[in-house]
Amino acid sequence: MNALDRLITLLSKLPGIGKKSAGRIAYHILDSSPVLAQTLAKELSGLHQAIRRCSVCGGFTETDPCAVCSDPARDKSLICVVECAQDMRIIEEGREFSGVYHVLGGLIAPLEGISPANLSIDKLISRIGGVKELIFALNPTVEGDTTALYLQKTFKNYPVLITRLASGMPVGGNIEYIDKLTLSRSFRGRVKI
Amino acid sequence: MNALDRLITLLSKLPGIGKKSAGRIAYHILDSSPVLAQTLAKELSGLHQAIRRCSVCGGFTETDPCAVCSDPARDKSLICVVECAQDMRIIEEGREFSGVYHVLGGLIAPLEGISPANLSIDKLISRIGGVKELIFALNPTVEGDTTALYLQKTFKNYPVLITRLASGMPVGGNIEYIDKLTLSRSFRGRVKI
Repeated sequence: MNALDRLITLLSKLPGIGKKSAGRIAYHILDSSPVLAQTLAKELSGLHQAIRRCSVCGGFTETDPCAVCSDPARDKSLICVVECAQDMRIIEEGREFSGVYHVLGGLIAPLEGISPANLSIDKLISRIGGVKELIFALNPTVEGDTTALYLQKTFKNYPVLITRLASGMPVGGNIEYIDKLTLSRSFRGRVKI
Repeated sequence: MNALDRLITLLSKLPGIGKKSAGRIAYHILDSSPVLAQTLAKELSGLHQAIRRCSVCGGFTETDPCAVCSDPARDKSLICVVECAQDMRIIEEGREFSGVYHVLGGLIAPLEGISPANLSIDKLISRIGGVKELIFALNPTVEGDTTALYLQKTFKNYPVLITRLASGMPVGGNIEYIDKLTLSRSFRGRVKI
């Protein structure tokens, strides 16, 4: 296998990149100035040294604690529990949430061998003092629901309000194309106007 | 901008990768073992050194001339003219064509400042001795049509058969959804059965 084939094989293993896209990207890099390839190579080789886990929330950061955890303006009594660091980034981009985060590092999935012990739950318990509300921002999937239920049981004896992101029709959605489960949740979670 | 943001920005400039996909890929690399990032970095940094242009056809190769040009089993009297090295790869994967290639390095596009002088046409003229057929495997677009017409005029006084890939309905296509131009070409290029 030559250098080009090796690069295409590597690229096609990245999420969302098939064999055709990998080919297109590899040829684009080859057609471009070597500066692009070198810059990408430099960023990739330095990535794991530059970025570490925040010792408080578990998100990715260059400084420890991370920018969110060390920001005095953020409300430390409000913890948003997310599956992974990327979800934290997406919520941050929404600029809606003013509290802090806790990254679980996965969702409970017995079939994939992920049990509560594999998640950062003990860490969350250690942060619970002074916290008024835990918001579960977990995917509305079987794994997300299972994890939310488990966490709810874990924290039921703590004086903390437990909430979950609303599940329902996406804005701009169409009742005609919505699945039954989402429609059912939209009804159960209906709000007074 | 931190290392993660820089990587996401770089990735989102690659073809077919938007900001969301770039984020997903960057987090995937960060979540994976550093070996993935290091291997990718190594391949990228060595890419332009390992891969050069074939001095005969202009395709990308590790050895010069390339595997196709140096294969005694390939029919050197049959040249398939393609826009870029990637098209050559795609045709090779089809295992249908037994001749050799010539990479133009683009298509004539006056609006983008690409004139015949920017393409590898002189090189093609220098290869024409002994060639029986030139197959234009160019995209059926305005640029592809313009380039095919230009090349046809260039080679009209040479004793060489000039052909072009058939344009028409894709296999598995549906007449209902085909555009008028393609349908018109399908009619004009109809074949006896």
